[in-house]
Amino acid sequence: MRFSVYRPPQAARGHVPTLFYLAGLTCTEETFMIKAGAQRLASELGLILVAPDTSPREPRLPGDDADWDFGLGAGFYLDATQAPWSAHYRMHDYVSRELPELVAKHFPADPKRFGIFGHSMGGHGALVLGLRHPHRFRSLSAFAPISSPSQVPWGIKAFTNYLGPDRAAWAEWDANALVRRRAYGRPILIDQGLADKFLEVQLKPELFEAACKAAGQPLMLRRHEGYDHGYYFIESFIEDHLRHHAAALVG
Amino acid sequence: MRFSVYRPPQAARGHVPTLFYLAGLTCTEETFMIKAGAQRLASELGLILVAPDTSPREPRLPGDDADWDFGLGAGFYLDATQAPWSAHYRMHDYVSRELPELVAKHFPADPKRFGIFGHSMGGHGALVLGLRHPHRFRSLSAFAPISSPSQVPWGIKAFTNYLGPDRAAWAEWDANALVRRRAYGRPILIDQGLADKFLEVQLKPELFEAACKAAGQPLMLRRHEGYDHGYYFIESFIEDHLRHHAAALVG
Repeated sequence: MRFSVYRPPQAARGHVPTLFYLAGLTCTEETFMIKAGAQRLASELGLILVAPDTSPREPRLPGDDADWDFGLGAGFYLDATQAPWSAHYRMHDYVSRELPELVAKHFPADPKRFGIFGHSMGGHGALVLGLRHPHRFRSLSAFAPISSPSQVPWGIKAFTNYLGPDRAAWAEWDANALVRRRAYGRPILIDQGLADKFLEVQLKPELFEAACKAAGQPLMLRRHEGYDHGYYFIESFIEDHLRHHAAALVG
Repeated sequence: MRFSVYRPPQAARGHVPTLFYLAGLTCTEETFMIKAGAQRLASELGLILVAPDTSPREPRLPGDDADWDFGLGAGFYLDATQAPWSAHYRMHDYVSRELPELVAKHFPADPKRFGIFGHSMGGHGALVLGLRHPHRFRSLSAFAPISSPSQVPWGIKAFTNYLGPDRAAWAEWDANALVRRRAYGRPILIDQGLADKFLEVQLKPELFEAACKAAGQPLMLRRHEGYDHGYYFIESFIEDHLRHHAAALVG
């Protein structure tokens, strides 16, 4: 597995907070670092940035590149239970355990000050990992997340293939279901563009908004006229996200 | 010809200053907008950003993609005089005349407040266009420019093919020769990474530094330990460049 790391100057003097960024469908560990324009802000705020890949890449499995929204580049940040995926597609275990341990071992990252965020499929991943591991990931935000995957085509397709047809197993990987069971406790920031072509069919932020309200989970869901699903949208609001995490993790 | 434009919010209220960015070998009109992280700063400073492509793309000419450093993606921002290039490879005319006119016609760009900058081959282009048209481009900077092209392999190859073997014709397209003839008048900002693999053979900033000194041209040439030739280098210093131009053009 490959991942990208940005180290701020503050990391030369001691251990600093660290943000894990999870990218969306078809992206790699390079996408965020190249396109989001986050590093200059992270250098001001003193944050390490870590961006993993979006799926295993080897060994190859039959049909893993048949679709752009399943398999390669589409690991959905869960631990698959269905063959052949269950042997290697364990992105949840990787991002919640192996990767943070690696980062803490090899970089000046303070393991008590980890935050997590992501975009689209990676927004789903960030919400699920934050809600499942609130003590590991102490701040949480997302851009245009798939926040109710069991109720939208991308999620239904991925969950059916990775987890099987039994929907009871899906709830463990669905932020909407998880937050209803146990709130994250701290505020969650979500930005959503209103010109996002996936808004109405795949993203449906109103469903997660209702779940947070029912659970008493503080949610800052900001809807932005004219913004689409791409990285110019992310670049436009990245500063607010880094400051959201820094407020929870720095100092 | 394709070009990218970023419009800041200030452009909704009136005409604003405009920066033309010229990219390097193999790049397109997308490279700067995706990789440089400039838009958030331009939105603060109230600058339109315009990024043209790096060569004509059609019609195709024999051998135009034989090399990565000549032909497609490598127009060198000059007007070719040698067949078959002379019919279409007229990037100087395009960037100094046609493109600014198009931009002024279709966007709220104030034609009295144009600046120009660029990277590598595009740094060469910015210096040459600024020095040839100091009244059109009223502020000037470059990242790791090919600032003495007649004296380095990239420039010698391009000039021989586009302009022919007579070196007397090359001086019109060589920032080193141009500045010795007539200084730009206002300060030029150049950033150069010291871990740039092209530094010693292709870039040689010390030659342009000597030319500026001989011409009485104010030059802020900053050498940066550890930075290479890529866009992370540009992203690291883009703020200083935008502020350099804004100081000359805004207000």
